[in-house]
Amino acid sequence: MKFFFLLATVTSTATAFTTGFAPSVVTKSASAFSFTLNAEAAAATTNGTDKKKVIILGGDGFCGWPTSLYLSDQGHDVVIVDNLSRRNIDTELGCDSLTPIQSPSVRVQAWKEVSGKDIKFVNLDVAKEYDLLVQLIKEEQPDSIVHFAEQRAAPYSMKNSKCKRYTVDNNVSGSNNLCCAVIDSEVDAHIVHLGTMGVYGYGTSGGEIPEGYIDVILPGGREQNILHPAYPGSVYHATKCLDALLWQFYQKNDNLRVTDLHQGIVWGTNTPQTIRDERLINRFDYDGDYGTVLNRFLMQGAMGVPLTVYGTGGQTRAFIHVTDTARCIEIAINNPPNAGERVEIFNQIAETRRVRDVAEMVAKQTGVEANFLPNPRQEAAENELDVSNKKFCNLGLDPITLDEELFSEVTEVVNKYKHRCDPTKILPASFWNKKRAEECATLDPTSVKVEV
Amino acid sequence: MKFFFLLATVTSTATAFTTGFAPSVVTKSASAFSFTLNAEAAAATTNGTDKKKVIILGGDGFCGWPTSLYLSDQGHDVVIVDNLSRRNIDTELGCDSLTPIQSPSVRVQAWKEVSGKDIKFVNLDVAKEYDLLVQLIKEEQPDSIVHFAEQRAAPYSMKNSKCKRYTVDNNVSGSNNLCCAVIDSEVDAHIVHLGTMGVYGYGTSGGEIPEGYIDVILPGGREQNILHPAYPGSVYHATKCLDALLWQFYQKNDNLRVTDLHQGIVWGTNTPQTIRDERLINRFDYDGDYGTVLNRFLMQGAMGVPLTVYGTGGQTRAFIHVTDTARCIEIAINNPPNAGERVEIFNQIAETRRVRDVAEMVAKQTGVEANFLPNPRQEAAENELDVSNKKFCNLGLDPITLDEELFSEVTEVVNKYKHRCDPTKILPASFWNKKRAEECATLDPTSVKVEV
Repeated sequence: MKFFFLLATVTSTATAFTTGFAPSVVTKSASAFSFTLNAEAAAATTNGTDKKKVIILGGDGFCGWPTSLYLSDQGHDVVIVDNLSRRNIDTELGCDSLTPIQSPSVRVQAWKEVSGKDIKFVNLDVAKEYDLLVQLIKEEQPDSIVHFAEQRAAPYSMKNSKCKRYTVDNNVSGSNNLCCAVIDSEVDAHIVHLGTMGVYGYGTSGGEIPEGYIDVILPGGREQNILHPAYPGSVYHATKCLDALLWQFYQKNDNLRVTDLHQGIVWGTNTPQTIRDERLINRFDYDGDYGTVLNRFLMQGAMGVPLTVYGTGGQTRAFIHVTDTARCIEIAINNPPNAGERVEIFNQIAETRRVRDVAEMVAKQTGVEANFLPNPRQEAAENELDVSNKKFCNLGLDPITLDEELFSEVTEVVNKYKHRCDPTKILPASFWNKKRAEECATLDPTSVKVEV
Repeated sequence: MKFFFLLATVTSTATAFTTGFAPSVVTKSASAFSFTLNAEAAAATTNGTDKKKVIILGGDGFCGWPTSLYLSDQGHDVVIVDNLSRRNIDTELGCDSLTPIQSPSVRVQAWKEVSGKDIKFVNLDVAKEYDLLVQLIKEEQPDSIVHFAEQRAAPYSMKNSKCKRYTVDNNVSGSNNLCCAVIDSEVDAHIVHLGTMGVYGYGTSGGEIPEGYIDVILPGGREQNILHPAYPGSVYHATKCLDALLWQFYQKNDNLRVTDLHQGIVWGTNTPQTIRDERLINRFDYDGDYGTVLNRFLMQGAMGVPLTVYGTGGQTRAFIHVTDTARCIEIAINNPPNAGERVEIFNQIAETRRVRDVAEMVAKQTGVEANFLPNPRQEAAENELDVSNKKFCNLGLDPITLDEELFSEVTEVVNKYKHRCDPTKILPASFWNKKRAEECATLDPTSVKVEV
């Protein structure tokens, strides 16, 4: 099954992805989940583009870590900044990554051993340690700063007031600090921010969701291309809408160069880089707060737990594989807007799928049934979703789509580490409002049993 | 001159303002700046509307204080919450209100003496002392919570990174905390928030700026009424745009009842309530950071200082007298949206004027010349502005417009307290970006001389 994963990945990247990952030799190593690039292939991938100094804020997280490794692998000079808040939230929730992720120092050391490349790690709170952030930017003089340093789970952001307040305070202060720090440091760094498809709302665009800006006709017949109206469905999503207004303002006032990437729901675990050594393994969240929907289903399927579909499963959402997250980031850093240009916005997605269709794919593959739970979220039961992703495709992305063979990679990871699973964390544990909490009152976290 | 002020005020309110201030007897008291209502007239003003319990966050400030007194005068039960941040910022800037404002305890005691009414004062930081805020709402069970508790000066918000960061952190956290606290307290309080006309940008609506929402035609011909696109011109204005998205979200998710008031530039000093005892006097900011444009001109005119017009003075802005601020708040609290209705948005303005025309009015009256300075702000040199204020007018507001006789009230205040002025604070001291700072480098704060 792993073999198919590798083939599928390599095929999709080697054929069409010109500026990114293009391995010429795939080697099955001693580690069950690793493969390697040869040096020549790695060098070839940055042909035609400069190697950049990149600071990755939040570089220890689910998207940040594989992106850091990918960019390093492509020859960029990577500095990771992270305050390890995601690991601390695991402690708070009594959860843990299903995969045994290593400390930042072990991770960076392992990467040095397998790649020969240095990644610097700095423990710094972007939302609070402003002066250190300015100092770092002055010292490193980055070409690009990738900003993943936000609380990124909608359910966690809706859990209670403490979580709502932390999400707003951390995310908004962090983004504002970043803009101020770039101005104060007088380094013309390109900011690349991870947004979310959730900024748009679902089904409010009158057709295909465009990339960031939408053509409207104003009263009096005047045509204008405006920032797409924000219609977030959680506090987390709201913070990305707030961020978008900050980028717009600082671009206008200070000529900052900013790219905002409205990403779909990320699935998958490992990437061609994280798989090269077990110490490089990416985190895998299976709990109701941090697990993303397809990964949760795949984990549940592998463990014989009925799939936790919320409501009718009629929600249509956008998806992207974690390997493509990293590729898209590199495309973004290689294509910054010019000074004075408005914020560049890409939709960072591969495709859209309806949640119950995704559940059906997993159910068919694993033989586990779907369990339609009362919906913990305040959202429309059913929605259509049509999203443009032309910009990335025009820049060379041939996105990985949902593929039962690729699912096997996740399943293998789950099977290897299933002993680390706490089944009481599988059901949803965050409810959007009082009414939704009441409707979910019968859910019993201790009722879930896993196959051992 | 004071006599004309009284007449003008009384005329405009008595004729058309049905739910608000309608004095039947105006008495010139021993205090040079006080007049009183008789009890019968005060009681009559709340005919047809319930008296409400109102918490006023930021009730010690330039708008908050006169609003608190006005609502108390109208028979509402007022609790002021304030952490005195505005007074502390005066300390930070080495500035002070031109008028000798008294401590909250003296203010409240003086109001008790002149009106017989109690106002409770609570020193609490809305952005930081969340648990106290929840406890207060539970204890007080307010019908309405008026939210003035934000850093409110655009120049201060652009002064440096510390000020930018404080403005974002304080304003956004405060608004988010308020929503969370209303939910946690399970009190169905109506939130009335002071927004700003600056959320709209200037001249981007394709015609008259509507009240909060704008009709657009989306791709495919679908008509929709959307939140007006945000296009703020300072960090301060940006925070009000961020607030607007938070109100939208919490209304949708938790059925909060919210009214957002997009206010113009406030002018004037005293109101029929603050003038009743010198200890009730409202603050008057004349400095480049906190002084609002017309008040700055009036103060400069009275002191023989050339009027500090920024750029060509071609900026068209919306204006409102501080007395109308208080009236509008009462109209808003008496007309809450129903549960489930979208955020109600009013434009809280009387009229629009071009800055150089305002300067000309003041110059003509005072004989002082206008001094066209390099513009410290990143903004269009000239703009048109047409704004709807139909909603408030339909609810009975007959707004006070710019009036040379009313100017005299401000001039008298200035003349009385001019010995408190520090002329080095008159020139702009905050520059929107590096380019604007360079263009303003020749401004010398010590060059300003005032007539003694």
